[in-house]
Amino acid sequence: MEPDGGQTRKQREDGLRTRKSILREAVSLATVEGLEGLSIGDLAKALDMSKSGLYAHFGSKQDLQLATIDEAERIFDLEVIEPAAAVQDEGLPQLLAICDNFFEHLRRRTFPGGCFFASAVLEMGTRPGPVKERIGLFQQRFAGLILQFAQRAQELGQIASDEDPTLLAFDLNGIILAANANFVMTQNATALDVARRAVRRRLGLNTDPKLEAAPEAPKQRSSADRRRRSNR
Amino acid sequence: MEPDGGQTRKQREDGLRTRKSILREAVSLATVEGLEGLSIGDLAKALDMSKSGLYAHFGSKQDLQLATIDEAERIFDLEVIEPAAAVQDEGLPQLLAICDNFFEHLRRRTFPGGCFFASAVLEMGTRPGPVKERIGLFQQRFAGLILQFAQRAQELGQIASDEDPTLLAFDLNGIILAANANFVMTQNATALDVARRAVRRRLGLNTDPKLEAAPEAPKQRSSADRRRRSNR
Repeated sequence: MEPDGGQTRKQREDGLRTRKSILREAVSLATVEGLEGLSIGDLAKALDMSKSGLYAHFGSKQDLQLATIDEAERIFDLEVIEPAAAVQDEGLPQLLAICDNFFEHLRRRTFPGGCFFASAVLEMGTRPGPVKERIGLFQQRFAGLILQFAQRAQELGQIASDEDPTLLAFDLNGIILAANANFVMTQNATALDVARRAVRRRLGLNTDPKLEAAPEAPKQRSSADRRRRSNR
Repeated sequence: MEPDGGQTRKQREDGLRTRKSILREAVSLATVEGLEGLSIGDLAKALDMSKSGLYAHFGSKQDLQLATIDEAERIFDLEVIEPAAAVQDEGLPQLLAICDNFFEHLRRRTFPGGCFFASAVLEMGTRPGPVKERIGLFQQRFAGLILQFAQRAQELGQIASDEDPTLLAFDLNGIILAANANFVMTQNATALDVARRAVRRRLGLNTDPKLEAAPEAPKQRSSADRRRRSNR
């Protein structure tokens, strides 16, 4: 036990929790207002906090933007990337999982403006600097991961040996972006069902609309299994 | 000849030219600052005009946004849609042309921030109102046109009879969006070459990188032919 009965630790935990809840709101707000539109004033208003309270957490707008991107990546990892990387069968099942996880992340409206990074890439692409570089790193990492799954699928003979994994990864990323653009504009989940069929067609799997319109139970079970495993 | 020696017509033409050049700048600025970030003040500064001069053209920010979208669509039509619709051989050659025209529109950096509409969809998707509706109309029209070309290609036996034209149109739109997202972030034309190969693979055409890395001369010729034809 700490000399002050854990009070310092408690304060530290409160500080972390506050910072985390601020950033969660900042990510959400950025999908509506943009990263450039993210002002400490608006964020303070959304959180019912004082601006000075927020300045204590983030010294500058750029610090806030960078911390917001970190938090967006943490959530994206948790909802989209990690459950796919954790799928036991490598290669094609991981490709399928990363795409489906993305569609479900949209379907349950994790953020009001759809995919944080799809918006951030287009908004910050013309603004050189640390914020753009940070988003570029995410874009490379995500594209690299899909490519890695595609290459593994080829090594395992799950996709044709004359398939170009670069093109496969590019196409899947395109389907992801088309799903996001359609869903953000229409808020109609039909676009996500079409996207699920497009992914299956691209991977040479069954594209029967009746079979693929709804999220599959196994994927949700495996996500719950994963949580159980990590709680052990 | 008009009674005033054509002076009134000249003034009208000057007014039109000014409005057009203002809107061309507004479209360009919006691909960097966003449609919401488009202020009459910034636009006046970019054009070295007075704010009151601009207010004479556009009564409100929403008027300016709507007129900017009209101009963006006019340019998109001119560079991407019309030359594809005018391709003599219907169906598959039109699908190829609309995608290639889009990539060349990015490659020659028509706007600094890439595709005006890809950004506008993500920016305005969460903001209900006339501006979002106007962008949604464009999105539907563009997707509908690709679908129409795909259906025609199937009627003509250029693509398999068991192909789903909805999926084909969705995939091509995805390749277009992936090309834009990569190019905006990296400014590296490699993404456009990969996109050209992805389109050809999807359409069952030759994807040899050596053949497809550079824009094809015939496409440029046919565009020049079109201009000659329309000048007759």
